[in-house]
Amino acid sequence: MKTLPSLSLAGIIITSLLGCQSSNLQYQDNKTSHQLQQSAVNSNLGYDIVESLTVEVGPRLAGGKNDLVAVKWAEDKFKSLGYDKVYKEPVKVPVWSRGDASAEVVSPFPQPLVITALGGSVATPENGLTAEIVRFHTLADLKKAEPAQVKGKIVFIDQKTERHKAGNGYGKSVGGRSKGAIAAAKKGAVAIVIRSIGTDHDRMAHTGAMRYKDGIKKIPAAALSAPDANQLNAILKRDKKVVISLKLSPQHLGYSTSYNVIGEIKGQNKPEEIVLIGAHLDSWDEGTGALDDGAGVSIVMAAGKHILDLPTRPARTVRVVLYAAEELGLIGGKQYVKTHKNELNNHYIAAESDFGAGYIYRIDVNVAPQKFEQVKNELSSMKINGVELGNNEAGGGPDVSMMPSLGVPVASLRQDGRDYFDYHHTPNDTIDKIDPKALAQNIAAYTQFAYLMAQSTTDLRPIKKK
Amino acid sequence: MKTLPSLSLAGIIITSLLGCQSSNLQYQDNKTSHQLQQSAVNSNLGYDIVESLTVEVGPRLAGGKNDLVAVKWAEDKFKSLGYDKVYKEPVKVPVWSRGDASAEVVSPFPQPLVITALGGSVATPENGLTAEIVRFHTLADLKKAEPAQVKGKIVFIDQKTERHKAGNGYGKSVGGRSKGAIAAAKKGAVAIVIRSIGTDHDRMAHTGAMRYKDGIKKIPAAALSAPDANQLNAILKRDKKVVISLKLSPQHLGYSTSYNVIGEIKGQNKPEEIVLIGAHLDSWDEGTGALDDGAGVSIVMAAGKHILDLPTRPARTVRVVLYAAEELGLIGGKQYVKTHKNELNNHYIAAESDFGAGYIYRIDVNVAPQKFEQVKNELSSMKINGVELGNNEAGGGPDVSMMPSLGVPVASLRQDGRDYFDYHHTPNDTIDKIDPKALAQNIAAYTQFAYLMAQSTTDLRPIKKK
Ligand SMILES: [Zn+2]
Ligand SMILES: [Zn+2]
Ligand SMILES: [Zn+2]
Ligand SMILES: [Zn+2]
Repeated sequence: MKTLPSLSLAGIIITSLLGCQSSNLQYQDNKTSHQLQQSAVNSNLGYDIVESLTVEVGPRLAGGKNDLVAVKWAEDKFKSLGYDKVYKEPVKVPVWSRGDASAEVVSPFPQPLVITALGGSVATPENGLTAEIVRFHTLADLKKAEPAQVKGKIVFIDQKTERHKAGNGYGKSVGGRSKGAIAAAKKGAVAIVIRSIGTDHDRMAHTGAMRYKDGIKKIPAAALSAPDANQLNAILKRDKKVVISLKLSPQHLGYSTSYNVIGEIKGQNKPEEIVLIGAHLDSWDEGTGALDDGAGVSIVMAAGKHILDLPTRPARTVRVVLYAAEELGLIGGKQYVKTHKNELNNHYIAAESDFGAGYIYRIDVNVAPQKFEQVKNELSSMKINGVELGNNEAGGGPDVSMMPSLGVPVASLRQDGRDYFDYHHTPNDTIDKIDPKALAQNIAAYTQFAYLMAQSTTDLRPIKKK
Repeated sequence: MKTLPSLSLAGIIITSLLGCQSSNLQYQDNKTSHQLQQSAVNSNLGYDIVESLTVEVGPRLAGGKNDLVAVKWAEDKFKSLGYDKVYKEPVKVPVWSRGDASAEVVSPFPQPLVITALGGSVATPENGLTAEIVRFHTLADLKKAEPAQVKGKIVFIDQKTERHKAGNGYGKSVGGRSKGAIAAAKKGAVAIVIRSIGTDHDRMAHTGAMRYKDGIKKIPAAALSAPDANQLNAILKRDKKVVISLKLSPQHLGYSTSYNVIGEIKGQNKPEEIVLIGAHLDSWDEGTGALDDGAGVSIVMAAGKHILDLPTRPARTVRVVLYAAEELGLIGGKQYVKTHKNELNNHYIAAESDFGAGYIYRIDVNVAPQKFEQVKNELSSMKINGVELGNNEAGGGPDVSMMPSLGVPVASLRQDGRDYFDYHHTPNDTIDKIDPKALAQNIAAYTQFAYLMAQSTTDLRPIKKK
């Protein structure tokens, strides 16, 4: 009885924060939301989960040796956390293995370069290939080039990735990685190397998915670390003719079956309506996938657990989805909307965590415009966790990005990702880069979000499709 | 004529800093020292030199492909800077080539580990070796262990290197790297892996020299990156039996000839007396040797150039020595004192720069105790460059460390090396880690030091030998 007055006081404060609109239901929900936030920020659960994943599984490339180890880990973890229902859904994934990668400057100043194969790249000939490089500042510049300038050469795209809180630098430069090989091959290049899509100055190259196009020659594609890209520039300043050699031995090995792994907290009033929070279970193979996306996995798994620990289940079902093969092209996300196409109209709202473990500073949504203020009101207790209420322009995250066009409302919980691209897709993506306090704040935000949306009395549809 | 009054004013200020002891000669020397400091901090010369070395030569392992490229570069650079005399002296160096290095956790949680061979390590069998690990916190703990605990296993020494301004952490942990293989082999270990001797948390392993001992089995030796050492600990916490595999393919390929490369500024009054400033030209093979020791090379080469630019030569000869094969055991430094044994009594004082490019905050010396105050007085204009006058306990730097026991006075210009061991002996030792302003301040300090010592009127001997 002693704690009641102070809890009531907290309730009154929250109520007054909300102005005079709050119903009694909302008063109770906000009290619970406040309690959930407190439990989450004071819990180590999330850190323990990401530690377990990165230590006991480690790297888990979709289709690779550890992929099904990760799937098993996820099922076991959901079960040990006491989720009401745990299941998995098959996802067909390509099998690509990295092999080795090496490169050197052959002339004018022989020396090794640090590179890594881009995900999906074909191999070079077994003994490598050797050619002059031709530098372009951006993919757009490459597209404008005369084919004669490119033919027979190794294209070098040298665009720097800017550091931004919201990660906007990535979108500006990543085209060189994903589409550079197509543009280079069209003009007769024999290979492509890019300045890593990263904000660090470490001697580590950033991998990531690249694409080919039917009918256009598949050429080997690799990334150079930032200091190595600088080095090529310094050499080019001294001598316009720079010859490098490149040796990559990745292999394409057909297809295998991976799984989206799902844990549910069954809603007590509207069990068929779903609040989806997700992350992707796969990772690139060179780090242990701590920030990308072990953090997200631990955030959504732990958020669900905090809701499971409530005395009663919320109204709607909270579905935690760990997607397969995000890194290879949102494959698990695309499969999910196929598998669940008949159920999508029961998806109340969806959000994915896939940007590391930096503090969440804002939540954006994409809901019916006339309901936007009402939803913000319902989410307003997230402010006690340092989360502002933002705009109605959310995308939802990579694996749920196809949902808005299918009519499903989404939310984006915006993280401070200033250092995310220092480590992204490198061997350096390890658990020491995660701040346990920031991770706990993320979990608190997802817990509040999932709970409040599972209790919401607002109809969020129809959303404006873009 | 317009600038004369202000120069005189500077001279008066310096004179008053020195109290009333300054002679007219010293007044002139301090004025020149002040001018040298100003020219040096406002010059890009040093940065241009280290950029030239790291771009046009890059990595330059003693005995390796680029070693003689570096020697040629150094001779050409001395000549182009206008040194009075440029020559080289042969140094016999062992030839060791790194080959490849890989490691994995075999059980309980299969995953790759990031390692690098320690310099001088033998190879594993061609298909690698697989064994259980046994962890020790320090080399001392390994030495105390029961052989039965170690026999047939891979020793894992897990000591962290502390971060200190003066780099003291290195001395505490480096024994595990240099002597661990001997201690482990004595107890029957099949290999040794150590936590990298480094202060960073990057996924890069730090190489560095290790030793064997006649009569004790040579076992393969490698370093793990800090996150990988953490990972082994996290796995050991879950399962005491951890099996790893290790594959290293370094080769010992006999001996070859390298060179100490020397540039001189001939003294006009006492040309036979030598002020030696040095650095080592060789580097490890994975970075470009920017901090270790391209910085030192550029500091002493540029310092000499600023003295060359004076209207007249100083009294004594300034000898800039770029040592061969420091990394393989101070080989160039040891050869130098042999080659110059009849001239050592003409070495007035010696100092080496080999701790990166952080700001110099203090100069220590090792001179005759009764001359210590007088020398400090002569060096006092270094204060305008932010350099304090320190103690009489200097060691002089690795390649001159054998000189004090041979009676030669030395100085240690102490650098802020707080981040030096973040990059030391890793691929990450690249030029972007050098702050051009701090480098210029180092050059100013070496310029003032070399000039003032070349002009000194104090007899620095006999020093106290330790
Ligand atoms: Zn991701
Ligand atoms: Zn990713
Ligand atoms: Zn060194
Ligand atoms: Zn070194």
